[in-house]
Amino acid sequence: MENQDTLRRLKTVEGHLRGVIRMVEGDAYCIDVIRQIQAIEAALNKVSSQILENHLNSCVTTAIQGNNKAERERVLKEITEVFEMSTKV
Amino acid sequence: MENQDTLRRLKTVEGHLRGVIRMVEGDAYCIDVIRQIQAIEAALNKVSSQILENHLNSCVTTAIQGNNKAERERVLKEITEVFEMSTKV
Amino acid sequence: MENQDTLRRLKTVEGHLRGVIRMVEGDAYCIDVIRQIQAIEAALNKVSSQILENHLNSCVTTAIQGNNKAERERVLKEITEVFEMSTKV
Amino acid sequence: MENQDTLRRLKTVEGHLRGVIRMVEGDAYCIDVIRQIQAIEAALNKVSSQILENHLNSCVTTAIQGNNKAERERVLKEITEVFEMSTKV
Repeated sequence: MENQDTLRRLKTVEGHLRGVIRMVEGDAYCIDVIRQIQAIEAALNKVSSQILENHLNSCVTTAIQGNNKAERERVLKEITEVFEMSTKV
Repeated sequence: MENQDTLRRLKTVEGHLRGVIRMVEGDAYCIDVIRQIQAIEAALNKVSSQILENHLNSCVTTAIQGNNKAERERVLKEITEVFEMSTKV
Repeated sequence: MENQDTLRRLKTVEGHLRGVIRMVEGDAYCIDVIRQIQAIEAALNKVSSQILENHLNSCVTTAIQGNNKAERERVLKEITEVFEMSTKV
Repeated sequence: MENQDTLRRLKTVEGHLRGVIRMVEGDAYCIDVIRQIQAIEAALNKVSSQILENHLNSCVTTAIQGNNKAERERVLKEITEVFEMSTKV
């Protein structure tokens, strides 16, 4: 995983989430809190897409070019599973 | 594309959508209409996942096992793109 | 429900869905089909938001200004339910 | 905002997110990371729904029962806006 950029993004999300916790502690307006939570989710979606992109270009490519049929099927099944879950969260 | 099952599912969605149109024409309760639209979206997500699964096992596998680097990169980029869009709809 | 515009939008979605069915019948490229399904979902989300807006300005406002506590609770509970479902589809 | 339960949930999400950061630092398998991010998003959706429910039963009810038309319109518009955004994240 090219994880320096992913880590940086996740730490930004962590800071954003701490800000939301402070908003709730400070009795911020509900709708403003919801909007910030939605912004966090958009940022997490971006991180997931980035991780998937790296995964496709490394593990998935290696597996598909390899001779292990079970491994090829496994990596492809995982892609479908995270895609299907992405439509639900 | 193993498209017989996909076609069957899409035609079921079409019937469902016509039912929603009749609900709106008949002044159905708004929340009931929204719930039916959400059910249609869940069904469409299922169709997309199925199409993606077939695609991974055919075109994507062929491209990645092939010698055309640009083609390999193209098919992987498309997967990331539809994944990213799936988090937005 | 201010349903003329809603109906028009749903019929546009129906036409779009028929186009997708023809694409699958004609063995269109999988990713192109998925993208069109995602476009349909985005259009359906827009319809749901419009229906919700009308609902809030009519039934919900009437119920909340009324004296029936059970009815007030019911309409508010429904809003939370469709919101929660919207995060899942 | 009945914020004790909301706060507790958000702090649980914060712990979950720190766990994901450690996974990335420890070079965890990409798909496992994506799945944990999706679990965080599901938890955040649940928090948003809970905040919305409280908001409907407090601020929104007060505004709609009040005499300030602009205020009534404002709170209803916000509901539609967060609903529409929830379909996009």
